[in-house]
Amino acid sequence: MVKVENTKSIAMSDSIINLDHGDPTAYEEYWRKIGDRCTVTIRGCDLMSYFSDVNNLCWFLEPELAEAIKELHGAVGNAATEDRYIVVGTGSTQLCQAAVHALSLLAGGTEPVSVVAAAPYYSTYVEETTYVRSGMYKWEGDAWRFDKKGPFIELVTSPNNPDGTIRETVVNRPDDEEAKVIHDFAYYWPHYTPVTHCQDHDIMLFTFSKITGHAGSRIGWALVKDKEVAKKMVEYIIVNSIGVSKESQVRSAKILKVLKETCTSETENFFEYGREMMKNRWERLREVVKESDFTLPKYPEGYCNFFGKTLESYPDVTVGVFHVLTQAFAWLGTKEETDLVNDLRRQKVMSRAGERCGSDKKHVRVSMLSREDVFNVFLERLANMKLIKSIDL
Amino acid sequence: MVKVENTKSIAMSDSIINLDHGDPTAYEEYWRKIGDRCTVTIRGCDLMSYFSDVNNLCWFLEPELAEAIKELHGAVGNAATEDRYIVVGTGSTQLCQAAVHALSLLAGGTEPVSVVAAAPYYSTYVEETTYVRSGMYKWEGDAWRFDKKGPFIELVTSPNNPDGTIRETVVNRPDDEEAKVIHDFAYYWPHYTPVTHCQDHDIMLFTFSKITGHAGSRIGWALVKDKEVAKKMVEYIIVNSIGVSKESQVRSAKILKVLKETCTSETENFFEYGREMMKNRWERLREVVKESDFTLPKYPEGYCNFFGKTLESYPDVTVGVFHVLTQAFAWLGTKEETDLVNDLRRQKVMSRAGERCGSDKKHVRVSMLSREDVFNVFLERLANMKLIKSIDL
Repeated sequence: MVKVENTKSIAMSDSIINLDHGDPTAYEEYWRKIGDRCTVTIRGCDLMSYFSDVNNLCWFLEPELAEAIKELHGAVGNAATEDRYIVVGTGSTQLCQAAVHALSLLAGGTEPVSVVAAAPYYSTYVEETTYVRSGMYKWEGDAWRFDKKGPFIELVTSPNNPDGTIRETVVNRPDDEEAKVIHDFAYYWPHYTPVTHCQDHDIMLFTFSKITGHAGSRIGWALVKDKEVAKKMVEYIIVNSIGVSKESQVRSAKILKVLKETCTSETENFFEYGREMMKNRWERLREVVKESDFTLPKYPEGYCNFFGKTLESYPDVTVGVFHVLTQAFAWLGTKEETDLVNDLRRQKVMSRAGERCGSDKKHVRVSMLSREDVFNVFLERLANMKLIKSIDL
Repeated sequence: MVKVENTKSIAMSDSIINLDHGDPTAYEEYWRKIGDRCTVTIRGCDLMSYFSDVNNLCWFLEPELAEAIKELHGAVGNAATEDRYIVVGTGSTQLCQAAVHALSLLAGGTEPVSVVAAAPYYSTYVEETTYVRSGMYKWEGDAWRFDKKGPFIELVTSPNNPDGTIRETVVNRPDDEEAKVIHDFAYYWPHYTPVTHCQDHDIMLFTFSKITGHAGSRIGWALVKDKEVAKKMVEYIIVNSIGVSKESQVRSAKILKVLKETCTSETENFFEYGREMMKNRWERLREVVKESDFTLPKYPEGYCNFFGKTLESYPDVTVGVFHVLTQAFAWLGTKEETDLVNDLRRQKVMSRAGERCGSDKKHVRVSMLSREDVFNVFLERLANMKLIKSIDL
């Protein structure tokens, strides 16, 4: 075996690196530099009650978090918040299940409601809709192949996890009252994709973890048009966990507020920082993949309204305004007939198997959001695989 | 209508008071007095990862919380922690569902596993085991009447919610491999009940909210003997919410640590403070109920190992060593043929209907853990009902 090492990563050259989960530790450095402005201090007597706001339909939502969410979407321009209910959840994971539950309940039938997503899809959707063996809904797999009658829910993730494509619904049933959609916009933020327009759908999910990298906080939110849907989602969360951690809510409120305040800054813009880092990683990854048997999706350039607005004070306003997708995951493929997840595992790189995402053995999902040293080791090992292959030939 | 008012509560004399939920705001004053020792400060770059300890079966459990839990149980002597897995949850609500899920999965059958609890039971168990319409388990109601064959899970809450009785299993199937038990010890702490012995069961649930009053944190833990059960519980929590808020975990760790440190103090012992407050409330409640048509359960005295140990430096060691149950809820009954929850509602007191707990219309559950002014208003309104009744006669 040919070892490709450099001094930076020698300490971890023998360790398994886990890029299966999308643990977004890449941004730690930014938050270290931002210093005290994001520090929260919570006294022993604070935040003791179950209730945050008894007059809100979502009574366990801290008002300052609701405010921060509305302000951030307003500043970024990625989603409409007017005339909508905000439902907070223990990550968007809990909210996705709350939404599937609410829509299934409101469908009112005796048969389980079908749940589909276009392949390749976020593998966790399969687990989320099957693990409790609910009689209310049923995972039916790939939306491209879905042709059942009756009520159904399509999960649309855009940009898509795992492959980064920009998505719309694929089940074609216009004006069908039984067709419901949940839009998962976890990655619809300017460091991952051009913000081309303000999203305006019935149920839109967002997650704190993938915006700022604070996965440990377990905070997500849903923007919901219909009052009954929002109410049923809240009821789900009450029975599931009697609300959502107040500590995480006040902390994420503070961080989202700083995110909003700095997003017009020339030196401290988090989205600019994140995009530059991701761009750099993607360029280096494409360099390794170039002239190999590996494949990566190609993404079109797009005009980003957010950077178009916030970068207008730059000497050359076009810099960074058009940008390609710098997705949080690489959807790595191979031209060979091989089991790529095992090939990577032999190189001590854990990734998510394409088959789990409704795709094939020739694809894997690899997190692009690891710490820098881990990402470097990943590139080395990938280069190593390329090298082994050319020696084999 | 005869109005019974005093100046202290005149401001809220017309408000509805909600004693349906057990929102434990009674202890705020204590935590205010304890000052900075429980204050946590979290920087923007802290606690970002999904992972707390990759080497722990429950990898999302913060090591300092695990340590604080073990130390507190050790100091109080209410539960054994040796040779057990600690699983942290978003409140014991999530953990109870995780445990039912795990045991049902491991039962391995095709038929749903029966879930029962002896009436009167915690009404939320009904919702927790029915809302997702799982095919894995089925709520079968009152354990006293349960006589089905096959695998079953008995939920044992001791002291019981709502009526405060000390409980053991009631389904009598000794040595039955198909009989599983989840012990909910939310209230097995010295401010609520004499700690008569160290509990040592297969699955024991605890919740931060009812010990210290920090309901907003949504932190609970399970002490689990069997590795496979713990593993399946962890898997449930991963799919349900990808772990548990780190902010809440580090804060509860700090507070539990202070709780442990002060629990031998003569002036700052939280359990002593809590018991005195609860005792005072119970005495005042019994005074109002006395010579009325209302009823309250009677509890035997018990020797509390915890107070027996911690109070030994007091001049008279017997003070407080024997004590009656000062339960977090009053299980209020009436001798009249009436719908008590509606009678109370007419007096603007919200309570939980006995029927929801598998009992009858003549009983309600009333939280004893409200803020002091709310509790005072409750007593006034209850006295008022008594007064109206005697005028009617």
